[in-house]
Amino acid sequence: MTQTSPVGRPLRPRGKLLQEDARRHHRSLLLQQLFREGPASRADLARTSGLTRVTVSDLVGELVADGLVEELGAPAESRVGKPPTLVGLAADSTHVIGIDLSATDRMTGAVINLAGEVQARHELARDGAVGADAVALVHRLAADLIAMTRRPVLGIGVGSPGVVDAGGTVIDAPNLAWTDAPLAATLAEAFGLPVFVANDANTAVLGEHTFGATGDGGLMVLRVGTGVGAGLVLEGSLLHGHLGAAGEIGHVVVDPDGEVCACSRTGCLETILAVPHLRRRLSGEVDPTAVLTDAGERLGVVLAPVVGTLNLHELVLSGPTELLDGPLLDAADRVIRERTMPVSSAGLTVRTSRLGEDVVLVGAAVLVLAGQLGVS
Amino acid sequence: MTQTSPVGRPLRPRGKLLQEDARRHHRSLLLQQLFREGPASRADLARTSGLTRVTVSDLVGELVADGLVEELGAPAESRVGKPPTLVGLAADSTHVIGIDLSATDRMTGAVINLAGEVQARHELARDGAVGADAVALVHRLAADLIAMTRRPVLGIGVGSPGVVDAGGTVIDAPNLAWTDAPLAATLAEAFGLPVFVANDANTAVLGEHTFGATGDGGLMVLRVGTGVGAGLVLEGSLLHGHLGAAGEIGHVVVDPDGEVCACSRTGCLETILAVPHLRRRLSGEVDPTAVLTDAGERLGVVLAPVVGTLNLHELVLSGPTELLDGPLLDAADRVIRERTMPVSSAGLTVRTSRLGEDVVLVGAAVLVLAGQLGVS
Ligand SMILES: [Zn+2]
Ligand SMILES: [Zn+2]
Repeated sequence: MTQTSPVGRPLRPRGKLLQEDARRHHRSLLLQQLFREGPASRADLARTSGLTRVTVSDLVGELVADGLVEELGAPAESRVGKPPTLVGLAADSTHVIGIDLSATDRMTGAVINLAGEVQARHELARDGAVGADAVALVHRLAADLIAMTRRPVLGIGVGSPGVVDAGGTVIDAPNLAWTDAPLAATLAEAFGLPVFVANDANTAVLGEHTFGATGDGGLMVLRVGTGVGAGLVLEGSLLHGHLGAAGEIGHVVVDPDGEVCACSRTGCLETILAVPHLRRRLSGEVDPTAVLTDAGERLGVVLAPVVGTLNLHELVLSGPTELLDGPLLDAADRVIRERTMPVSSAGLTVRTSRLGEDVVLVGAAVLVLAGQLGVS
Repeated sequence: MTQTSPVGRPLRPRGKLLQEDARRHHRSLLLQQLFREGPASRADLARTSGLTRVTVSDLVGELVADGLVEELGAPAESRVGKPPTLVGLAADSTHVIGIDLSATDRMTGAVINLAGEVQARHELARDGAVGADAVALVHRLAADLIAMTRRPVLGIGVGSPGVVDAGGTVIDAPNLAWTDAPLAATLAEAFGLPVFVANDANTAVLGEHTFGATGDGGLMVLRVGTGVGAGLVLEGSLLHGHLGAAGEIGHVVVDPDGEVCACSRTGCLETILAVPHLRRRLSGEVDPTAVLTDAGERLGVVLAPVVGTLNLHELVLSGPTELLDGPLLDAADRVIRERTMPVSSAGLTVRTSRLGEDVVLVGAAVLVLAGQLGVS
């Protein structure tokens, strides 16, 4: 799904599926089916993949030998006749390291299994670390996490603030004082593992899409924290945008008569929705519901044209639940529907993230699953 | 590019590239290269496709036999040594019928070659025809157009107003009084040709993307006529949306204090931008520039969140040039930039369509080229 490439492996242009890739591709087809649909018989796998029984048996044997797939025996309901043996993804055979750099005060990480379930957590306080110190802290966190599992590690995924290129270099992350920081390359060299780094909002939407969403119908995850940004999965694929800046809506002007923003514009979405602004307003007002409703209505105004244009299936708010879930979400939902046609919004669900605060961690694991196994 | 399928040929899920498809896929690879990059030697084609020289020679032989590709001799600059023979797309070997149903007073059509060039035109007055009469008129137009070419016809493409499903059935087109009209099926049966039908805004964006755009960086074509709607190509693919309603922004509310719209909302984009509204305002005002600037500014307000979210490369206005090109486009461009970050809008071009009024006709040809040859 993601076009982020593991270090040192150049992206192959879409559509150029060469002979030498066929086996890897077929392997991914089977893994994807087991990942998405659960256990299946070899005959099921042959039917849905279009591969021959012989090829399927051969590939399943290889995946079992690799420990990624396990024999599950016959299903309970087919005791009569000759029951087919089911195989399934061996979720705990292999672990993935997920790292979330989006918080300002700490770096969080987790050991995650192939089913996206967090097995262990670890975090390090940032203590204001920036630049090379912050890179060193990421390395320490990765080393700690790898030491926490006894399973083979498939790879390391990182959700980082800022602009990240397809090779996992952080082009610009002001909060960490990183400019052209080759984070994927240095982690890959240090640990001898495949490493995938992506922008935190993009990482979040991948996590929600794979483990929280219902279908491929168009998903936008709006991250609300110190800043505001979004990640989008449209028609099943992560949206990058022309210059990799898709989802940068924190500084879209919502209220030309509003507050002056740090970016020097007036009335950006962040001046209304970012957590510090919301908390400040809540502390100065007697009616918290009015404050949250007002913020939600303004969010609805800025999102209505986006919903009309994209015909989204799910719009997900990710951030402090006590602020987002309730009057704010309700007001945004209402204004979006008032300001768009039913054809645009009838199929839309507006909700908070199913993965809660883990959305970036789990998304970081998805980066690895997609990149290494072709599943998502 | 488009997922619209020819009648009777079910779509295969993406990624399930089976053995039996390989030859067809490789054929499309070569055609796509010749279509996009122009003439090439067999060695060039082998290099860029990753196929062997033998496979390329074999496939090129087949394409020459089919008349789609022609031998062009050696290029002028390589007279020394043994010059490679170039092959190129035989643009005039085969024709495509394109039909545009988006005008309210007529149905227009064209005979178009493989390079997207209009070879002949024809139109029929609608005279208020709706329902079965309107279907009969489309059939007459198609028959007339087929009779206008002596070349083999690759297929018929139709850009229709309203909601069109992947099988080419017009689900709902109020203006033509069509509900569940199986236009692709009836045309295919009548003419024994592959037929592709899509929404006119989607057809327009495919035409602009293939023959008017510069790259794959995210393209939105906003059609301004009796109504207002958009088509989008993102990351190289047509955006359908969750329920096939992507681009429906004509009834997004822009001005809650504005005019009541036919849809019963107040201040929809159409009440400001649709051609009848613009002309009415222009007829009642002394300063046409002020009217057009005001409309452009309001358009900018509604598009800024879209540009911020999608990081578009090109935003194209398609409609009457005398209304759109000038103060209206300039104001929209300015407001979009004022209301978004440079990271979102620095790479953006706002312009009118390069294909002018032919954008739907040429797009209809692209539906056929993509569906039948795999080129776009
Ligand atoms: Zn700002
Ligand atoms: Zn309306």
